[in-house]
Amino acid sequence: MKTIGYAAHSADAHMVPYHFERRDLRANDVAIEILYCGVCHSDLHTVNGDWGPQPYPLVPGHEIVGVVQSVGSDVKNYQVGDRVAVGCMVDSCQECDQCHHGEEQFCRHGMTPTYGAPDRISGETTQGGYSKHIVVREEFVLRIPDNMDMAKAAPILCAGITTFSPLRTWKVTNGSRVGVIGLGGLGHMAVKLAHAMGAEVTAISRTKTKEKEAIAMGAKGILASTDANAMAAAANSFDLIIDTAPVKHDVSAYASLLDIDGTLVVVGQVGPLEELMSVPLVFGRRRIAGSLIGGIAETQEVLDFCAQHNVYPDCEMIKMDQINDAFARLAKGDLAHRFVIDMSSLQEA
Amino acid sequence: MKTIGYAAHSADAHMVPYHFERRDLRANDVAIEILYCGVCHSDLHTVNGDWGPQPYPLVPGHEIVGVVQSVGSDVKNYQVGDRVAVGCMVDSCQECDQCHHGEEQFCRHGMTPTYGAPDRISGETTQGGYSKHIVVREEFVLRIPDNMDMAKAAPILCAGITTFSPLRTWKVTNGSRVGVIGLGGLGHMAVKLAHAMGAEVTAISRTKTKEKEAIAMGAKGILASTDANAMAAAANSFDLIIDTAPVKHDVSAYASLLDIDGTLVVVGQVGPLEELMSVPLVFGRRRIAGSLIGGIAETQEVLDFCAQHNVYPDCEMIKMDQINDAFARLAKGDLAHRFVIDMSSLQEA
Repeated sequence: MKTIGYAAHSADAHMVPYHFERRDLRANDVAIEILYCGVCHSDLHTVNGDWGPQPYPLVPGHEIVGVVQSVGSDVKNYQVGDRVAVGCMVDSCQECDQCHHGEEQFCRHGMTPTYGAPDRISGETTQGGYSKHIVVREEFVLRIPDNMDMAKAAPILCAGITTFSPLRTWKVTNGSRVGVIGLGGLGHMAVKLAHAMGAEVTAISRTKTKEKEAIAMGAKGILASTDANAMAAAANSFDLIIDTAPVKHDVSAYASLLDIDGTLVVVGQVGPLEELMSVPLVFGRRRIAGSLIGGIAETQEVLDFCAQHNVYPDCEMIKMDQINDAFARLAKGDLAHRFVIDMSSLQEA
Repeated sequence: MKTIGYAAHSADAHMVPYHFERRDLRANDVAIEILYCGVCHSDLHTVNGDWGPQPYPLVPGHEIVGVVQSVGSDVKNYQVGDRVAVGCMVDSCQECDQCHHGEEQFCRHGMTPTYGAPDRISGETTQGGYSKHIVVREEFVLRIPDNMDMAKAAPILCAGITTFSPLRTWKVTNGSRVGVIGLGGLGHMAVKLAHAMGAEVTAISRTKTKEKEAIAMGAKGILASTDANAMAAAANSFDLIIDTAPVKHDVSAYASLLDIDGTLVVVGQVGPLEELMSVPLVFGRRRIAGSLIGGIAETQEVLDFCAQHNVYPDCEMIKMDQINDAFARLAKGDLAHRFVIDMSSLQEA
């Protein structure tokens, strides 16, 4: 199938229109017409080569929402016209212990990311959602609940599941005390999801500038990390902290905010953190952990949860040809919302 | 009560004989004649002032084994002649949530360490077990099981509980895959205890020099951390790592040895660790934690466990006047055993 997308042709190059082929349907494949695609900070990191060399030309995008256009002969669960979604993975071995218990993101043989990785069968480079169409095996297609607004759903596929999964893993429930470091794409979803689970949520940010927005998202307020008195007063006051800061930083300074047996989960920074101080860990059995997206079943769960609780990312809709401006704005600061590309703006030439 | 001990009179001073008073028995106090006291690396750190200024003269020692000499009027559970022990704590508030669920080490008002801290009632400095006698409130006295060899029990009170507690917290059981970094006082107890719980234990050390000793303790062998090939081959192979290294080091290098959802627990180093890399945490939901001794009930549990499973520290018995040599040897290297002072060697002048 011929399609069109936006691709980077080298590190730091601008994104430009790109005509390419999607594979012919295999028996278990679903072909999707993409309606919306979220813009994740990792799209920018990847096309910039920040995380290593890439197989250019590269079409990023792993927050994909659309409708089924056609299905392979063995597909059982989807029909033409179904409202569907695709997240950060498009394949895994399906045979290891991790795949068997629904944690394909930790597949022993490596899951296949939605873009920039070799397809497990053909070896072709996978290409992402900044495009008109995608072809994905049935097992990695999600269903958009009937009452969900498709235009606002896309960021749930990455920012949503990345924060939902640790909230579930660490058993956040009614009355849990949750801190969220950062109020960008991940952080604002963490606040909304934890609030919807019944947690008492505090946003943790350098200043209180965005407190009104944080409260609107469901936080009880902002703890300003630059306010030493406020930080000291907040010692031992969180069961869980979701740390979405996407840069090298000092997690030890936040560890003391955890109560005994509390956990700080890094989901933002992929790379070095500052020197770790053992004292807050030892004197309180505190923990520093990481978490990576979530499995397919859990991704369906977060979509259903958001539909049920009316939780949506704060989205700013852009046209496909605005992507380079959007990347520039993303590189500058932590927007308290997510860009979503309206794919109807991409004209097939 | 007049007694004699060995005290440091300033940071880095040699330990010398010291005559001092133990308090008169309060209604809930137990007076103990000390028979043995273990020598913990933290005794050395504390008297050296490595962890901050100390209230000299200071008598260290928190691995205390002895017999009850007299009891206060309200003491219910101990009688003269009972075989007893005292560990790292001698008091706590007894009223907070942590004390109520048997985690006095995390008392909200701060537990009272066995030496070098103000007594909660009189304000006098607590003095430790390098002495002939100690007076401790009943709630912080442990019972030595009938079949336990008192001469070898002392290190269980700190090295034992410090490693037993995380093995219990992280639910080590038959077949658990446990790594133990370091084979000193803490490390050798971690190997023995984990083995007695049915775990498959691997000692992790710079070289394989001590492999025979490690196997004798119950390890299946040593993983040499300087052998890059062996380290790579051991990726994802542990459920839990007990990290007893007492110096600044790089925990990230060991984090990759953990399987998905595995935890590395720091129990040795109290202070800075190297820069933390988030990658092994994120791509495997791995965790770095700390752990601090254990509560009183759990300390009794490890004594009972050791008696039941015939687990004893490897002890080298010394006389009280050999303590300065012992400290010098301790400062030099990670002995695969523990010094224990035979208190009968301390003559009351």
